Amino acid sequence: MELSRRRLLGTVGAAGAAGLVVGGAGGALGVAAAQDDGPEALTTLGSTAVAFRPARAKHQAGITTPLQAKGHLVAFDLTPGSGRKEAAALLRRWSRTAEELMAGHAPHADTGVALDAGPSSLTVTFGFGHGFFDRTGLTKRRPTQLDPLPDFSADALDPRRSNGDLWIQIGADDALVAFHALRALQKEAAGTARLRWQMNGFNRTPGATAQPMTARNLMGQVDGTNNPKPSDPDFDERIFVGRDADQQWMRGGSYAVVRRIRMLLDEWEKQPLAKQEKVIGRRKSNGAPLTGGSETTPMRLDANGPDGLPVIPADAHARVAAPESNQGAAMLRRPFSFHDGFRDDGAPDAGLLFVCWQADPLRAFTQIQRKLDRGDALSVFLRHEASGLYAVPPAAEAGDYVGRPLLEG
Amino acid sequence: MELSRRRLLGTVGAAGAAGLVVGGAGGALGVAAAQDDGPEALTTLGSTAVAFRPARAKHQAGITTPLQAKGHLVAFDLTPGSGRKEAAALLRRWSRTAEELMAGHAPHADTGVALDAGPSSLTVTFGFGHGFFDRTGLTKRRPTQLDPLPDFSADALDPRRSNGDLWIQIGADDALVAFHALRALQKEAAGTARLRWQMNGFNRTPGATAQPMTARNLMGQVDGTNNPKPSDPDFDERIFVGRDADQQWMRGGSYAVVRRIRMLLDEWEKQPLAKQEKVIGRRKSNGAPLTGGSETTPMRLDANGPDGLPVIPADAHARVAAPESNQGAAMLRRPFSFHDGFRDDGAPDAGLLFVCWQADPLRAFTQIQRKLDRGDALSVFLRHEASGLYAVPPAAEAGDYVGRPLLEG
Repeated sequence: MELSRRRLLGTVGAAGAAGLVVGGAGGALGVAAAQDDGPEALTTLGSTAVAFRPARAKHQAGITTPLQAKGHLVAFDLTPGSGRKEAAALLRRWSRTAEELMAGHAPHADTGVALDAGPSSLTVTFGFGHGFFDRTGLTKRRPTQLDPLPDFSADALDPRRSNGDLWIQIGADDALVAFHALRALQKEAAGTARLRWQMNGFNRTPGATAQPMTARNLMGQVDGTNNPKPSDPDFDERIFVGRDADQQWMRGGSYAVVRRIRMLLDEWEKQPLAKQEKVIGRRKSNGAPLTGGSETTPMRLDANGPDGLPVIPADAHARVAAPESNQGAAMLRRPFSFHDGFRDDGAPDAGLLFVCWQADPLRAFTQIQRKLDRGDALSVFLRHEASGLYAVPPAAEAGDYVGRPLLEG
Repeated sequence: MELSRRRLLGTVGAAGAAGLVVGGAGGALGVAAAQDDGPEALTTLGSTAVAFRPARAKHQAGITTPLQAKGHLVAFDLTPGSGRKEAAALLRRWSRTAEELMAGHAPHADTGVALDAGPSSLTVTFGFGHGFFDRTGLTKRRPTQLDPLPDFSADALDPRRSNGDLWIQIGADDALVAFHALRALQKEAAGTARLRWQMNGFNRTPGATAQPMTARNLMGQVDGTNNPKPSDPDFDERIFVGRDADQQWMRGGSYAVVRRIRMLLDEWEKQPLAKQEKVIGRRKSNGAPLTGGSETTPMRLDANGPDGLPVIPADAHARVAAPESNQGAAMLRRPFSFHDGFRDDGAPDAGLLFVCWQADPLRAFTQIQRKLDRGDALSVFLRHEASGLYAVPPAAEAGDYVGRPLLEG
């Protein structure tokens, strides 16, 4: 592929249904825009822009957007003295900046870290935590779906890395583009909100595998096979808040559950392949159910082996988490892996930044996690170390900012 | 681009001069190799394999290899009771595994984390630290170039994250491929060497910018413009150990200096653009010298402005570090950026995993760092927090392992 060095200030064209604009944005940000030394030729990886205000979908980007190679999760608490007015001003600043960054433009007083790069599928997604509503005098408008998650027996949660008044998910296929966005948004919070916790994650780089392929996690498992798909007839109903919502400002939004799940990889990797596959209920090689077929073949949960026992064991993760085992409950899992080096005992501090999306956490994450908490063979290899639950409002309408119907409605 | 899901066990073809084999390796590792459901179609990002034993170059991969999107640096110490024999066995295991991984094959008892992915430009580079030679009874064969670096006034080094008997640099354009290699190599050290420190880094993802472009660091600066280039007539002499080496086992090898350099980004970003450019001596937009031209235009160090002062200030980083200011000294900088979240004070724990390569650290890194330590305007924005110096032997010859001429010579 012929590549050149022209840097031009691109504009984002009409957004498609999924909010993806491939090649619609130039590979340029701010300062370098004046240069012009050849035709533009970013690859799709760099030139793909995701629309901040999708033309048709009403939900924010970063929920049904394909997994990106790099992710930052960050939570803020409102500072003492910051209330509804200050929060509204912050969301207005953040929305403007997110829209600029996602289109490949540089914000005011830019650090330059993303110079030369295209938008690289950057998404910025904003959410509100439980405490936000009390601090802004909006307690009556807090959805019941934000009621704290129940305790699970396997939890060992660090409150300093959990919850928070405001939450942002940043994803991009380039690490500097993602870091640039994180810093720009952090800077705009100054005086209104202070950083509470921040985590970094990653997924496959587009092009590293023959696509489309379901992601693998750091246990080596295909992870996400049984996710609801946008083509499912009940997808919107499961994942996005509908017209019957008590809190109408959340209509078109979704609830995000975030868990830092450390994997005990030293213990996991000692298990023979056959044991690992029984724990999961699927083949490691291709994610196919132990009852046969390919990754997309439905599990035959009632099939028994020659020994009379279920082929997919009763405590296999895929069985316990399946909609069939949970009155049809399902959530859209959209995680990042994490690796923060090694712990003092030499074990990797690594695992999954689990992020899942649903219209109602009680009937999705909580239902399934309660079941997993009681009988999942995988749980002995996992440690839930942090947790958050956020109300993620719909995308901003034209000329608006994310959350205005709550903050000024 | 049409992509499919065939996974086949590829073989690496003849290596080019740079050791790069584009499209020569299949996108497959181990378990998935038996699958065959369509034509193979990884992109260049995934299918690029770097040769472990380059056909012509005598040096290990990961020195002149283009920067990869993800990097791991890791140091080990030999465990009590491990001497020359055990170290030799470890280097033999490591070399075999590195060769397999770089070709896109899975090692024995694989975790599966890299399944489905191509080699993604994976490189694994091995080095020996100062202590290695005492622990293996090879003190007399330790090169004088491994003498400890001098203290610099700006150093605030953490010994727990510095030095180490053995050092590995891992780079790949896919984060799971890199993590997979790290875990495979760590596992093989068990019983012989224990992890001392480990750091994670990143660079631009290929395709995020119009290429070729010099990297940017987290200060937003173009970083690496004045690097020696393989096409320079004295490149090999500057970077690789020559035939006149006291320690012939290092002939064709190089010395790596590693520094964890935290950037005081909050302070840096408060500086106006004009101040930042004076600190560096180059334009932020495109890396051109303040004396004009484009990124590759030579600096005019003797040019004065209308005020009679040098256009590139006397303490500008680019001036102080330039070969012209250091009796011609130059090193090949090949860094990764790092971002390990935020510190307790809310400042980012982020900066540069500085890695530089040279035939003689005393006449390259040490010469230049001494100069920077005394008069670099950039240094007030940097904290050197960890340091390592490693002898990186030449690539293994056919049928051999890295370091055999030292360990069995």
